Amino acid sequence: MIKVCICGGSGYTGIELLRILSHHPGVVVTGATSEKSAGKKVSDLFPHLAYYKNLVYEPLDRGKLLEKAEVFFLALPHGASQETVHFFFSKNKKVIDLSADYRLSSPALYEKWYGIPHAFVQTLKKAVYGLPELYRKRIRRARLIANPGCYPTGAILALIPALKGKMIDVSSIIIDSKSGTSGAGRKADVAVSYCEVNEGFRAYSVGTHRHTPEIEQELSLVYGKDIRVNFTPHLLPLDRGILSTVYAPLAKKATPGQIVDAYHKAYKNEPFVRVLDYGKYPNIKNVRGTNHCEIGLKLNERTHTLIVITAIDNLVKGASGQAVHNMNLMLGFEETTALDTLALYP
Amino acid sequence: MIKVCICGGSGYTGIELLRILSHHPGVVVTGATSEKSAGKKVSDLFPHLAYYKNLVYEPLDRGKLLEKAEVFFLALPHGASQETVHFFFSKNKKVIDLSADYRLSSPALYEKWYGIPHAFVQTLKKAVYGLPELYRKRIRRARLIANPGCYPTGAILALIPALKGKMIDVSSIIIDSKSGTSGAGRKADVAVSYCEVNEGFRAYSVGTHRHTPEIEQELSLVYGKDIRVNFTPHLLPLDRGILSTVYAPLAKKATPGQIVDAYHKAYKNEPFVRVLDYGKYPNIKNVRGTNHCEIGLKLNERTHTLIVITAIDNLVKGASGQAVHNMNLMLGFEETTALDTLALYP
Amino acid sequence: MIKVCICGGSGYTGIELLRILSHHPGVVVTGATSEKSAGKKVSDLFPHLAYYKNLVYEPLDRGKLLEKAEVFFLALPHGASQETVHFFFSKNKKVIDLSADYRLSSPALYEKWYGIPHAFVQTLKKAVYGLPELYRKRIRRARLIANPGCYPTGAILALIPALKGKMIDVSSIIIDSKSGTSGAGRKADVAVSYCEVNEGFRAYSVGTHRHTPEIEQELSLVYGKDIRVNFTPHLLPLDRGILSTVYAPLAKKATPGQIVDAYHKAYKNEPFVRVLDYGKYPNIKNVRGTNHCEIGLKLNERTHTLIVITAIDNLVKGASGQAVHNMNLMLGFEETTALDTLALYP
Amino acid sequence: MIKVCICGGSGYTGIELLRILSHHPGVVVTGATSEKSAGKKVSDLFPHLAYYKNLVYEPLDRGKLLEKAEVFFLALPHGASQETVHFFFSKNKKVIDLSADYRLSSPALYEKWYGIPHAFVQTLKKAVYGLPELYRKRIRRARLIANPGCYPTGAILALIPALKGKMIDVSSIIIDSKSGTSGAGRKADVAVSYCEVNEGFRAYSVGTHRHTPEIEQELSLVYGKDIRVNFTPHLLPLDRGILSTVYAPLAKKATPGQIVDAYHKAYKNEPFVRVLDYGKYPNIKNVRGTNHCEIGLKLNERTHTLIVITAIDNLVKGASGQAVHNMNLMLGFEETTALDTLALYP
Repeated sequence: MIKVCICGGSGYTGIELLRILSHHPGVVVTGATSEKSAGKKVSDLFPHLAYYKNLVYEPLDRGKLLEKAEVFFLALPHGASQETVHFFFSKNKKVIDLSADYRLSSPALYEKWYGIPHAFVQTLKKAVYGLPELYRKRIRRARLIANPGCYPTGAILALIPALKGKMIDVSSIIIDSKSGTSGAGRKADVAVSYCEVNEGFRAYSVGTHRHTPEIEQELSLVYGKDIRVNFTPHLLPLDRGILSTVYAPLAKKATPGQIVDAYHKAYKNEPFVRVLDYGKYPNIKNVRGTNHCEIGLKLNERTHTLIVITAIDNLVKGASGQAVHNMNLMLGFEETTALDTLALYP
Repeated sequence: MIKVCICGGSGYTGIELLRILSHHPGVVVTGATSEKSAGKKVSDLFPHLAYYKNLVYEPLDRGKLLEKAEVFFLALPHGASQETVHFFFSKNKKVIDLSADYRLSSPALYEKWYGIPHAFVQTLKKAVYGLPELYRKRIRRARLIANPGCYPTGAILALIPALKGKMIDVSSIIIDSKSGTSGAGRKADVAVSYCEVNEGFRAYSVGTHRHTPEIEQELSLVYGKDIRVNFTPHLLPLDRGILSTVYAPLAKKATPGQIVDAYHKAYKNEPFVRVLDYGKYPNIKNVRGTNHCEIGLKLNERTHTLIVITAIDNLVKGASGQAVHNMNLMLGFEETTALDTLALYP
Repeated sequence: MIKVCICGGSGYTGIELLRILSHHPGVVVTGATSEKSAGKKVSDLFPHLAYYKNLVYEPLDRGKLLEKAEVFFLALPHGASQETVHFFFSKNKKVIDLSADYRLSSPALYEKWYGIPHAFVQTLKKAVYGLPELYRKRIRRARLIANPGCYPTGAILALIPALKGKMIDVSSIIIDSKSGTSGAGRKADVAVSYCEVNEGFRAYSVGTHRHTPEIEQELSLVYGKDIRVNFTPHLLPLDRGILSTVYAPLAKKATPGQIVDAYHKAYKNEPFVRVLDYGKYPNIKNVRGTNHCEIGLKLNERTHTLIVITAIDNLVKGASGQAVHNMNLMLGFEETTALDTLALYP
Repeated sequence: MIKVCICGGSGYTGIELLRILSHHPGVVVTGATSEKSAGKKVSDLFPHLAYYKNLVYEPLDRGKLLEKAEVFFLALPHGASQETVHFFFSKNKKVIDLSADYRLSSPALYEKWYGIPHAFVQTLKKAVYGLPELYRKRIRRARLIANPGCYPTGAILALIPALKGKMIDVSSIIIDSKSGTSGAGRKADVAVSYCEVNEGFRAYSVGTHRHTPEIEQELSLVYGKDIRVNFTPHLLPLDRGILSTVYAPLAKKATPGQIVDAYHKAYKNEPFVRVLDYGKYPNIKNVRGTNHCEIGLKLNERTHTLIVITAIDNLVKGASGQAVHNMNLMLGFEETTALDTLALYP
C-alpha cells in the first residue's frame, strides 16, 4: 500500500479526495491537514467519511508530514501552494497540486493574473499539466503534476479535436460556462449562502476570470498558434457540475458526420470521455460523482458555427478525480482504479 | 372597470395573468377557460388564487365568451391560437396573443419553423409585435398584439442599443440563454419532472429553437439588414427567470463608458429596463416576480467583444407581465399599473 | 404620510420590510440602519430595491433617528434590541420589535432561555404580543409590539381553536416544524452555505429551541393552564416558508366536520388565515411572499389524534408582514394595506 | 458469476439496482425489462449507465426470462407484482420483490389497504420481510424476500431498540417523515413536475398512507403487542432521502446515556446503521447514495419524550441497496459487497 497525504483536507476537493481514495485498493491515506480543524476527527466534521475512523486533522507541519507519505495531494489556496509544492518536490516526493500555482508555464503570466510573483521557477519547469487526454505519457514519468482547473478541463476537452483538425476559425472562440456552487469552495461567505444562490443565476468575473490564461495556454499549445478566448463563468443553483457551451466559426466546410467522427476518433481510447451521438446533449446530472466528461456536438449550418458542449463534475474530473487519475498514471495503477463509479442518478 | 377574459387560464402564463390582474384597479377578469378543468373553481386548483372566489373555469366557447369581455388574453398552445385570435379580432375585440402564432410577419417563415400554414394572413398583417421598448406608439393604437416570446424579449433588449448604434459586427452574434423550468409550461412530462431537472443542467434545441426566427426578425428590423444568430437555450433548475449572455465582436473602437452611456440613453425612459453600472451583472433573482429587465455590460478589450447580459422573469416580462403592459398601453392606463411590484428576494 | 424607520435594514427581515412598505400608500420609509453597510445605497446592495433610489444605510444613532420617524421597526439581533426598544418607547415613539426581547412576559423565563437578564422590566410590561388573531384590540391601542417569532406564529395559529374548544389533551402536544433557510438570517456561515443546505434536510435544536417558551406562553394563555410542548425545528432546502405539523390526542369525541367547523368559525373574520377543506393540506408554495396562513386538518380516527398543519411565509406572516399588519392596526389603516398580494406561484 | 434479472428496470429503483450491481464482483445482470422502452438500449435512455453497453430493455416475458437468471429483482407497481413473484418463486428461482405485495403477512390487511385481494396466499407465507437488522438469519435461508418500503425502513430502525427495551409508551407514537421526490417514482405527473415541487413543501396521505400497516406490523412483532402509529409523510424538494422524526413518551425513567447505550448496543454489529453521539442529528445529505441509516437521539426531559431521528437514502437503504443487501445474504456474499460506497457530499 502506497502512503498518501492530503494537505488541505477539509475543503470540498480535500474531502472528495478522501471519498475517492476510500475505494482505492493500492493506497492508504496516512494524513490530512487542516489548520482550522487541527485535532478534530475527520468523521466528526464529516459524518459521511465515517470510513476514516481514526484519521485526525493535523496542522500542515511539512517536516512531520514528510515521513508520512510518498505522494502528496495539495488542495491549498492559490499562492499558498507554491512553497509547499516546492518543499515536497525537492524532497523527492510525488506531488499533485490542485491549486493554480504550477499550471501556467510562464511566471510572468502567473504574476499578471494572480498578482504575486512565482518564487520557484525551477520547480515550475518540472511541472506537467495534468490533463491525461493531452499529456498521458509525460504524466507517467512526472513527479510534479499541476492538476488542471475545473473550467479549463471542460473547455479544453471541448476543443482538442477541433483544433487538431484545424476545423475552426480561432479568432472568436466563445466559452460560456456554468458551474455548480461547490466550485466556490467550502466557506463562510454571504455570496454563497443558500438564499443568495438558490433560485438565482448570474455571470461573474466576465472576461477576467483567472482560468482564462490557463485555457488559452493549452488551446494555443494544441493549435500551434496563440489563441485568445472569451470566457464567461456563471453560477448555477446546484451542488456539482460544469457545463460549457463553446462556439467557434467553421474554418472549412464540414458535415455533422465528419465532426462527430473526428471527436469519436480523438477520444476513442479515453476511459473518461464520452462523445454523444449527434443531436444528443450532455447533462451535468449524467456525470455527477464521476470522472467522466460528456461531449455533445452541433454544427449550426445556418451560421456555419460549431457548437461543442461538455459536462463534467467540477469536484471529480474538474479536480479530485482527475488528481487520482494522475496519481494512477504516476504510480502505474490501472487508470480507472477508484474512478469507475457510475453517476448518482437522480 | 374594463372586462377581460383569459383563454387558457390554467397554465403558468394563465395563472400569472390572474395574479397580476388581481392588482389592477381598472380591469376585472370575467372569464377564464380551461378544457381540462372546465367546471372547477380556479381557487380549488390554485389555492394561492383564493382572491378569485367565484371564478370557475369554463370551456373555450367563443360565442359565449364574446359577450363577456372587451379584451382577450390568449394563452393557448402555438397553432391552437390562430383561429381564436382571428375570431375575437374580427369581432372588434382587443386581443393579446401570448402564443407564437402572430409574431412572425412572414407566413412562409411561420410555416417553415412551426410546421403548419398560417390560415389568417390578413389578420396577421394587423398584429403588432408587443415589445413596448420598440413599438410603444403602434401598440397604443393596436387591436391585436403578438406578445413576444420569453427568450426573444431578453435577447432583443440586449441588442437594441448596440444595433442602433452600429457598435457591433453582426455576422457572428451568439445568444446563450438559460431558462427556468416554468418556461416549459405546466404539464405532465417526465422530462420536466422534479428529479430529472433538479441538480441537472443541459442545453436543448441547439440551433433549432423556434424562437430563433423571431429574434432574427426583430434584430434585423432594428439593424436595417438581415441578421442571423446562434441561439442556444438551456434548462435551469429553478422556477422562474431567463438569463441571456450575448456576444458580438465590436464593429468599431469604443470605451466601456461609451457603451454604458449608449445603453443608459436608449433605455432612460423605459420603466422596466434597468441598466446596471459597468462591472455589475444581472441576477435572475433580482427580477423574480417583476416586469423588469436587468442589463449588464462588459467590453472584453482583450478580444474586442461586447458582452451583454440580460435577466428577466420569463413569466412576467417574458409573458404575462408584458401582456399586461401591452394592455395598459392599448387601454390608456398608466404603463406600470399592476406591474410596480418589487422582486421577492430571497 | 407617516414616517417610519427600520433599525437593522440589511438583513432578510429588514429588506422584506422595505419590499412590503414600498406598496403602502400611507407611510414613507425615512431611514434604514446597518452598521456594516452604513454609507452605502440600499439599491447598490439590493438591486431589487431600486425603488428606494435615495435611501442610504446609516449607523444606528438613536438620537439622530429620533427626529426621523414616528414608527420604528427593530430588526436587530436578540439581546441587542432591549435597549433600543426602550429608548424609542420612552421617547413616545411607536415601536414594533421583531426580535425576541419583548415576547416573553416573564423576565426570569427570558433570562433562562436567552442567557441574559432583561434590563427593562417596566417597558416589558407595556409590550403587547403582536399576533393579531389573538390580540387585535390590544394591538390597536399599543405603542410597543413584540412581533411574534416565525415558528410560534405557525404553531399557535394551529392550536387556538382546538385549545379554546378544549378539543385536545394537552399533555403530549408535538410540534414538528420545517423552515426554509431564510429563517437563519442573511449571514456568512458555512452551515447555511448553499452546498451544505441544498439536497440536505436535518433537525436542529431538538427540544431546546428558544421559540419553545414563546409557544408555551401563548398556548397556556389561550388554554388557561400551563402547557408544555415538544417542538422540533428542521431546516428545509428552500428560501421561504414554514410548515408545522402539529399532533395532539383528542380530549373528547369529535367528527371531522365538527373540527373543521370550529376552525372555520374561529378564523372566519381573519383576513390572513385560510382554513382548507377537510382532506386538503397546505403547501408552503401557496403562501410564498404573502401574509397568509394556510391551515389543513385531519382527524386520525385510528389513533384518536388531531393533526393540524399550517403553512406560512416565515419572512412575511412570520416576521415583516405581521409587523406591517401590526403597524396598520396601530395607525388605523385598513388591516390588509400593503399585504393583499397573491403568492408567487410557481 | 451469478445471473440476475431486473423486472421493471426503467424506474428509479430499477436503474438504482443497475447502478449498484455494476460494482458487484459476483453477479452479472443478464436482463432488464420495461414495457414502454422495450427494444431500446439502457444506455440510450440513461447515459449514466453507459457501463451496460449491450443491455437492451425487453418486455416482461416470464417464460423467456426464466432461463436468463437465478435471481429476480422485481421493481414493478404494487398489484402487478403478485403474479410475477409467484411465477418465478414457483420455478425455484430466488425472488426479491421491491413492491408491497408480499410485505403484509395478513391477506386481509393487504386487501384493506391496497384494495385488491391477494391471490397467492401460499406463496405469501414463504415471504421473509427483508429488513436484515431484524431478520438476517431468515433472509439467508429465504427464497422470497419482501423488500421493505422506504418509509418503514427508516421508521422501524428508529424504534427497534426502544421497543425491545420497553423504554417507551406505545400508545401515542408519532412518525413524522419527510421524503425526497424520487420516492414518487419516475413518471409524467404534474404533481411531481419541477415547478410544483421546487420551493414547496407539503404533507400528503395524512393518516392514510399505505406504509402505515407495514410499519405497525413490524413494530408490533418487535414489541410483542399490537401497536398503532400516527404516520405523516411529507414531500421534500430534493432528489433522495427520507428523514423520520419519531416521538414517543418515555415508559420509565431513563438518562440520555442509557438510551444512547441501548441503541449503540442494538446496532453495534450492523454494517449499515450509524448511531450518532448524543446531541448530533442526522442529515439526509450524509447518507445520499449509500445504504446507511444515520440515527440521532434526544431525550426531551421537559416533556419526558424520546425523540429518535433517522435518515436514509430512500432509493438505497429504502429500496435497491437493501435489496442487494438481501441478495448478498441469500447468496452468501459478504454483506457489504457493492454497498460500501461513501456518500456523495456535497
